[in-house]
Amino acid sequence: FEETKAQHSPFTSMAPVAPRSGDVIFASVERVNAELFTLTYGAIVRQLITDLEEVEEVNKQLDQMGYNIGIRLIDEFLAKSNVSRCVDFKETAEVIAKVGFKMFLGVTASVTNWDAEGTCCSLILEDNPLVDFVELPETCQGLYYCNILSGVVRGALEMVSMKTEVTWLRDMLRGDDAFELQVKLLKQVPEEYPYKDDE
Amino acid sequence: FEETKAQHSPFTSMAPVAPRSGDVIFASVERVNAELFTLTYGAIVRQLITDLEEVEEVNKQLDQMGYNIGIRLIDEFLAKSNVSRCVDFKETAEVIAKVGFKMFLGVTASVTNWDAEGTCCSLILEDNPLVDFVELPETCQGLYYCNILSGVVRGALEMVSMKTEVTWLRDMLRGDDAFELQVKLLKQVPEEYPYKDDE
Repeated sequence: FEETKAQHSPFTSMAPVAPRSGDVIFASVERVNAELFTLTYGAIVRQLITDLEEVEEVNKQLDQMGYNIGIRLIDEFLAKSNVSRCVDFKETAEVIAKVGFKMFLGVTASVTNWDAEGTCCSLILEDNPLVDFVELPETCQGLYYCNILSGVVRGALEMVSMKTEVTWLRDMLRGDDAFELQVKLLKQVPEEYPYKDDE
Repeated sequence: FEETKAQHSPFTSMAPVAPRSGDVIFASVERVNAELFTLTYGAIVRQLITDLEEVEEVNKQLDQMGYNIGIRLIDEFLAKSNVSRCVDFKETAEVIAKVGFKMFLGVTASVTNWDAEGTCCSLILEDNPLVDFVELPETCQGLYYCNILSGVVRGALEMVSMKTEVTWLRDMLRGDDAFELQVKLLKQVPEEYPYKDDE
């Protein structure tokens, strides 16, 4: 466990990250069938629509679920990826797109649309296993079906001291040609690594 | 698509199935990170507990969700596995344990505790990615956390004309030494393959 701890430590210098790391890590982690995941996620969304009725509420709930997942997934991410500290938000965005998405969903995103300050960008997903076979019925047009993903990104970043706002700008289920997730850095809080005793 | 259709047809004779098929298929299907799946599933269960309050209702809902997933997963299973028709329930149970579980969850089950008639057996899972890091709080002692799995098995079997009753006999979250899922064949309905036009 000491080794894991050392990787998590804020005092460890950053290990070099090549874009292909995502593939290597993805090949090494335990995985389940993507269709099972897709159908299971669909079952959650359907359940929330039944229970909450308002599409807006469903969006909020999916985001909150994602946030709760993100604050836990970051641990596996740090332990498995050897990424311990990114130099800046630009590098962070690249790591999420190339390593994070690959490691968890098996797909990579591209990073574009940077603002001048380097605090806001878009992650573009052209392939998204969450939406295989999904079509939104007329009654669900306001739904952000993949809102769990925005929550995961927000939750994970918060655990490494970056408060962000994460918003869908494009959504293939709404007829767009890709998924575009805008990630805006609101504030970078002083480093307080959420240190836990390893069980 | 013709080829896929032929595999699904009840008139095709059974292709030989060796136990290792599960590994081969699992290696070839698209997959996502198991921890993401585990945490996502945990988020569903938590949501249902919040919404439904009664643990009994949560058990029912998880089973129903699993059933809805199972009636769809069977299609991928038949298409990818080359298994089109099992000789009897005994063979069916082996295929579920060695090919089905492997293909979707990445683990295999063993089949034991057959009754004299060959219509009731147990699937034993010693490794179950659904429950990694899960501990049931005191208030959830009646919960069958993995009830989605029993629903999946029941739903999938119903699509190949086998009405079953699927019950947890042992559950590691309840302190048992393994997961034991009893599958009892209630009735084998005359073959009416749920034929659909391929889109």
